Amino acid sequence: MSGPGRYLEEHADQVHEAAERIRGHVRRTPVLGTDLDPELRLKPECFQVTGSFKPRGAFNAVLSLVARGSRPPGVIAVSSGNHAQAVALAASSVGIPALILIPEDANPAKVAATRALGAEVIQEGINFANREQRLREVMAERGFTLVHPFDDWDVIHGQGTAARELLQDAPDLDVIAAPVGGGGLLAGTAISAKRHRSSVKVVGVEPAAADDAYRTWKAGSIQTLPTSPSTLADGVRTTAIGRRNFEVMFAHGLVDEVVTVTEQEIADAVQVAWSRLHLALEPTGALPLAAYLAEKLPKGLMGLILSGGNANLQTVATLLKK
Amino acid sequence: MSGPGRYLEEHADQVHEAAERIRGHVRRTPVLGTDLDPELRLKPECFQVTGSFKPRGAFNAVLSLVARGSRPPGVIAVSSGNHAQAVALAASSVGIPALILIPEDANPAKVAATRALGAEVIQEGINFANREQRLREVMAERGFTLVHPFDDWDVIHGQGTAARELLQDAPDLDVIAAPVGGGGLLAGTAISAKRHRSSVKVVGVEPAAADDAYRTWKAGSIQTLPTSPSTLADGVRTTAIGRRNFEVMFAHGLVDEVVTVTEQEIADAVQVAWSRLHLALEPTGALPLAAYLAEKLPKGLMGLILSGGNANLQTVATLLKK
Repeated sequence: MSGPGRYLEEHADQVHEAAERIRGHVRRTPVLGTDLDPELRLKPECFQVTGSFKPRGAFNAVLSLVARGSRPPGVIAVSSGNHAQAVALAASSVGIPALILIPEDANPAKVAATRALGAEVIQEGINFANREQRLREVMAERGFTLVHPFDDWDVIHGQGTAARELLQDAPDLDVIAAPVGGGGLLAGTAISAKRHRSSVKVVGVEPAAADDAYRTWKAGSIQTLPTSPSTLADGVRTTAIGRRNFEVMFAHGLVDEVVTVTEQEIADAVQVAWSRLHLALEPTGALPLAAYLAEKLPKGLMGLILSGGNANLQTVATLLKK
Repeated sequence: MSGPGRYLEEHADQVHEAAERIRGHVRRTPVLGTDLDPELRLKPECFQVTGSFKPRGAFNAVLSLVARGSRPPGVIAVSSGNHAQAVALAASSVGIPALILIPEDANPAKVAATRALGAEVIQEGINFANREQRLREVMAERGFTLVHPFDDWDVIHGQGTAARELLQDAPDLDVIAAPVGGGGLLAGTAISAKRHRSSVKVVGVEPAAADDAYRTWKAGSIQTLPTSPSTLADGVRTTAIGRRNFEVMFAHGLVDEVVTVTEQEIADAVQVAWSRLHLALEPTGALPLAAYLAEKLPKGLMGLILSGGNANLQTVATLLKK
């Protein structure tokens, strides 16, 4: 094998190694059928430890650091959401400190959950604009190693274990759809799906209000949003996908398509998830379902990676009352 | 084997036959771990077809009728809830008519769901007081066969397949808890659990506001509530358990204990299910979780049968906002 085949095979091997490495630390989530459509299979990562897929990548990154003999004095992450909890858990599981920078205006419940997992949290004076600079300052002060939320090979390979499990349990899938923010989950998904069978269509789903991946796919180069967008799907508010993610998804063409969904379609999908699928998803986790319900996915046996369930209950309660 | 051992073995064999019979019509629901407690395993029957465990018993009853060569001109059920949809689906799957009597004041969404599954629904003039009499009239007119929601051996054996699967997937459980209304699910659960290992503790959970099973257990004879009780857990508003259910659960002692939970404990459990377990349960389905959270279950590795997810969204939205 040569060219893209060799590239794919090497990355797929690393997803396989990630699966071995993180076994015992993460859960194998089930694959569910639904009453909506016999052609639909769900991979509900809301049942993953900490309530999202993120520990797959975080554990692979932290365990790989330790395995390479470069046990760092600590790890650091910038996140106000699921990645924060995942890094906190992975670090405490191997007994190294975790420091998480969380913007001052973040949801207090998520801050508390991150602290409960043993991480040190710095919030004072952190905002969206200065957080990269503060990150570099703190890294220099403490000598901690960054666990990037998506532009990191170990993270990408770890996230690819979800699609790998899905295809082990449902090998006949024609289509796999996953949310796309920075592209960690989607790049990993694409590696696992294309290694399984090159005809599996891989689709990224993002809010129309945060359509940088869609525009990146169309343009063939990384497109950046001017500011972090406002969307119900608060897990995909990144302004651009990463360099490694671009390489996998578009330079090597492992993603077939990016589709966008409206805020109304996201809200409707959360309603359907909670009322008919009995899955308490967060809006970001419902993105692939939104694309399915809006008939924006290719036809065939479809697998949806539902990325997480850490919803803001006030928001969801309001959606349910409509 | 003789005495209770022989009784148990015969019924467990029929649960095994039920599992074979209904395979392909119902789903094997997964067993989930949680971040709450490493000693907890969940059997989320909200992911069963129609959103509750009820099709296990309904399919076993309808398929058994047909297999015994007594294919009826139709089947009939009285229910405003999950049993209605289960009987409608089972009947349409084998191509016989289903007639469901639903009280006039029932939730219109559940009526619509039952009709959508192909059943004829009679609501006019049906209320809690006259429904038994109307049932007998309609059965006489049409010659349809009743599928009782709990006091029926085929239904009991079908419901027992949930605990059987749970113990296949989690064979080391020390405790199994299930909701108890009429006792179909709990009797089936007790058969499967005690056949697996006699030391598995089987616990029924019911609302304190509907404590007929608790009082029946204490008294050693069937106790009947004067009226259908008011409780968030609207799936267990039956006024008394059935004769066959009493025989299995208490006369033969296959249930170890019945515990009751308050309305506040049920509401709290729904909140925890939706926010921390990411399971959109109906209040009845959250009863075993309520008993767990209130520390009313015996110690050890615990399996909770979470019976369904067909919640009234208005009610749940109100609980989530608290």
